[in-house]
Amino acid sequence: MPLEWSGSSPELLLTLDRASAEPLRSQLERQVRDAIRGGRLRVGERLPSSRELARTLGISRGLIQDCYAQLQAEGYLATRTGSATRVAAGAAPPAPAAAPARPAPPPARLIADFRPGVPDLGSFPMADWLWAVREAGRAIPTAALDYGDAAGATALREVLAGYLRRVRAAAAEPDRIVVCSGHAQGLVLAFGALARAGVRTVAYEDPGGPRSTAAAAAWAGLDAVPVPVDEDGVDVRALAATGARAVVVTPAHQWPTGVVMAPRRRLELIAWAADRDAVIIEDDYDAEFRYDREPVGALQGLAADRVVSIGTVSKSLAPALRLGWLLAPPSLAGAILEHKLLNDRGSPALDQLALARLIESGRYDRHLRRMRPVYAARRTALLAALAEHAPGVRVTGLDAGFHAVAHLDAPGGEAALIEAARARGVGLHGMSMCRADGGDTPVQLVLGFGNTGERAVRAGIAAVGDLLAPR
Amino acid sequence: MPLEWSGSSPELLLTLDRASAEPLRSQLERQVRDAIRGGRLRVGERLPSSRELARTLGISRGLIQDCYAQLQAEGYLATRTGSATRVAAGAAPPAPAAAPARPAPPPARLIADFRPGVPDLGSFPMADWLWAVREAGRAIPTAALDYGDAAGATALREVLAGYLRRVRAAAAEPDRIVVCSGHAQGLVLAFGALARAGVRTVAYEDPGGPRSTAAAAAWAGLDAVPVPVDEDGVDVRALAATGARAVVVTPAHQWPTGVVMAPRRRLELIAWAADRDAVIIEDDYDAEFRYDREPVGALQGLAADRVVSIGTVSKSLAPALRLGWLLAPPSLAGAILEHKLLNDRGSPALDQLALARLIESGRYDRHLRRMRPVYAARRTALLAALAEHAPGVRVTGLDAGFHAVAHLDAPGGEAALIEAARARGVGLHGMSMCRADGGDTPVQLVLGFGNTGERAVRAGIAAVGDLLAPR
Repeated sequence: MPLEWSGSSPELLLTLDRASAEPLRSQLERQVRDAIRGGRLRVGERLPSSRELARTLGISRGLIQDCYAQLQAEGYLATRTGSATRVAAGAAPPAPAAAPARPAPPPARLIADFRPGVPDLGSFPMADWLWAVREAGRAIPTAALDYGDAAGATALREVLAGYLRRVRAAAAEPDRIVVCSGHAQGLVLAFGALARAGVRTVAYEDPGGPRSTAAAAAWAGLDAVPVPVDEDGVDVRALAATGARAVVVTPAHQWPTGVVMAPRRRLELIAWAADRDAVIIEDDYDAEFRYDREPVGALQGLAADRVVSIGTVSKSLAPALRLGWLLAPPSLAGAILEHKLLNDRGSPALDQLALARLIESGRYDRHLRRMRPVYAARRTALLAALAEHAPGVRVTGLDAGFHAVAHLDAPGGEAALIEAARARGVGLHGMSMCRADGGDTPVQLVLGFGNTGERAVRAGIAAVGDLLAPR
Repeated sequence: MPLEWSGSSPELLLTLDRASAEPLRSQLERQVRDAIRGGRLRVGERLPSSRELARTLGISRGLIQDCYAQLQAEGYLATRTGSATRVAAGAAPPAPAAAPARPAPPPARLIADFRPGVPDLGSFPMADWLWAVREAGRAIPTAALDYGDAAGATALREVLAGYLRRVRAAAAEPDRIVVCSGHAQGLVLAFGALARAGVRTVAYEDPGGPRSTAAAAAWAGLDAVPVPVDEDGVDVRALAATGARAVVVTPAHQWPTGVVMAPRRRLELIAWAADRDAVIIEDDYDAEFRYDREPVGALQGLAADRVVSIGTVSKSLAPALRLGWLLAPPSLAGAILEHKLLNDRGSPALDQLALARLIESGRYDRHLRRMRPVYAARRTALLAALAEHAPGVRVTGLDAGFHAVAHLDAPGGEAALIEAARARGVGLHGMSMCRADGGDTPVQLVLGFGNTGERAVRAGIAAVGDLLAPR
């Protein structure tokens, strides 16, 4: 039967009964009133226009207009000229009390927050991104609006493969790439594939990201064990002693120490993987920004059959885009793809095509070029401010990325230091969150300056310099 | 040290050694040539402009231009006036042979493909969507480009809560909503939360989606057991006999039979859940399109503390957007959110805000209004074509959505029928894929007409009518 006969409105979930003794207008008024009284329609909610509603209910528009006018007169609805009819303020009951225990609200405005792991959000190239989305939307074939290849759009995988070969010296082919939503999903997919392959234990760097790694491992049914990091990167002898058959590492710029994995250590790690038939998960998270050394290619380029490399635009563009990729060895590519299919059936197509367009057009490189001196200037400002306000503080890990580690002599301990800084309006973040045992000695801070402008860097360090300076 | 001193290009992963006896231009030429020969730079790959490269390498632009000219003369590079320098065709070695065994390529063009589960992709309101993305991009606060609330953008959760109350009579509050990427992720998150709550076994409708349900259950460590569906919906007595403490159902329009769950059955199901302290997962997947009945509210509205409702825009807009939501009872909301955080740290912010804008502006409702008569006409065309070319075929499940079930008398069996239709250029899809045991009797087809135009519906049925008609 054609739609017009239905006598019901799917947009409001109303039903008119023509057989009823109650006039249609009265039925309609009653149902809208009840929906408002019952809280199903809340203050400010938009109602369909009288024309739309008349068409779907199959009754005259005048009848709807009369109904709306009546409810307006009764104070249930409000109409401003030229805009939609909405539920009037005061007409509906108050919304139920908020549910308990959401994460705490963001803190009051700080002079400076040295939270690590976030790029300069104000520099996100929104105009370029909107351009790329529009270009992608105009060019997208109709069939690409369907469920796509869970591995990702072919166009993006091709562009990423070229990019990773060019910039990261990776051994990248499009059919070894699975597009994902970033580092977190990359880990979940890689761990799932490892579990499928019979791996029981995965090692991770300590300090590192113990909580997120352990949570992802637990989901996949894996045990996660920490392995210490020294000044050349992860300790391969300690790794071998764990018996783990997989390890998550950050060779380009160790998180959070900032150590760049030494060439010999890289070869030892690869030898370990070959010897144990093990897998290296390379978190290539902020290789885009280096300051004072030659660029270091991805570990993946040296051992493509042993390394899963995870990349993301969370640091190069913005976390909110939720786009990343895995570059997988042949032995794991199938299982990773299967987990992606199961997990979410693929990442959003338009976003993927927009990123492909952004990279292909050169605008992505241009953005990175613009950002390098911005971060370099913040880094310089941080060092200068520390030298002035906390002379003697040792700072390490500054070769790349946008965070550093400050080594402190703070007898009161990490928590007291952070609290004291907070009281002065400065957000500091301690190394304890990165340590597998949560320990707070030696006292170290992970100072992020990605999303902290030069002025804030200076003002923040000036405000807490005496807390940081050696006694 | 400032960036200009680095002597390296992060965009090409090149390094110049000023201490070397080899002239800089020669070093540069050699490294670019090697990158092309070695396959790291492939045919068509864009090189940085001479100005960009000069700046990052800290050498004169003329030197880069000379280098590019030399490599162009050697045939490695090609430049067209006004566009970027790229690797020349024929310069690079051929890409390695493609990896084995990707899913088979899409079949040759069909007269008609009655694949169910896909909306009319050609009607996707791209202009509206691009408008909404642009509006969202312009209005988004800088802080919202960070990792956001894993539950989803507040603006979208508020709009969705209003929408679900208004259209689905759901008991929806923003803080009970978790935005996800659609049905597949919704199931994964709900199952993960159920496993955490101690549930061991989850039941699902048979016929239904046995493979995807079982795969998601296996990932969460749950057993999945099928429960039969009759003409009133899922068989609650059989469900009770399984001992399962959770069930996945499609009350608005059972997938794939098209049965609308009877009111009494709904109450029985809710009573079962209360009795067993069980959870109902309501897959509210295509409630937007109903043809000849009054709309049916979501089951969730009747038992908000027992039902997880999963929705998606895959049917109302397009699967490629990868946006959906869960509406969770208080007992599971926390665990679902935790799994979402672990799984991908939240869905893309701009897409979420664009959907909020689309709904809030009334354009989403307008699109649905436009589509209802389109699908209604295809449904009418399907019935008419079957009546003409396959008289006597019984068709059920047509109250809503855009698929129907055809009950056949096909002695040769489902596979032979589908193959014969394929040979005539018509894609048919059998019920066996929806049955838990994969059985193909009785022979039934799931005829989708969401992405099949009226003309194709008529031509397709005309081409295979004799195969479908009762003997």
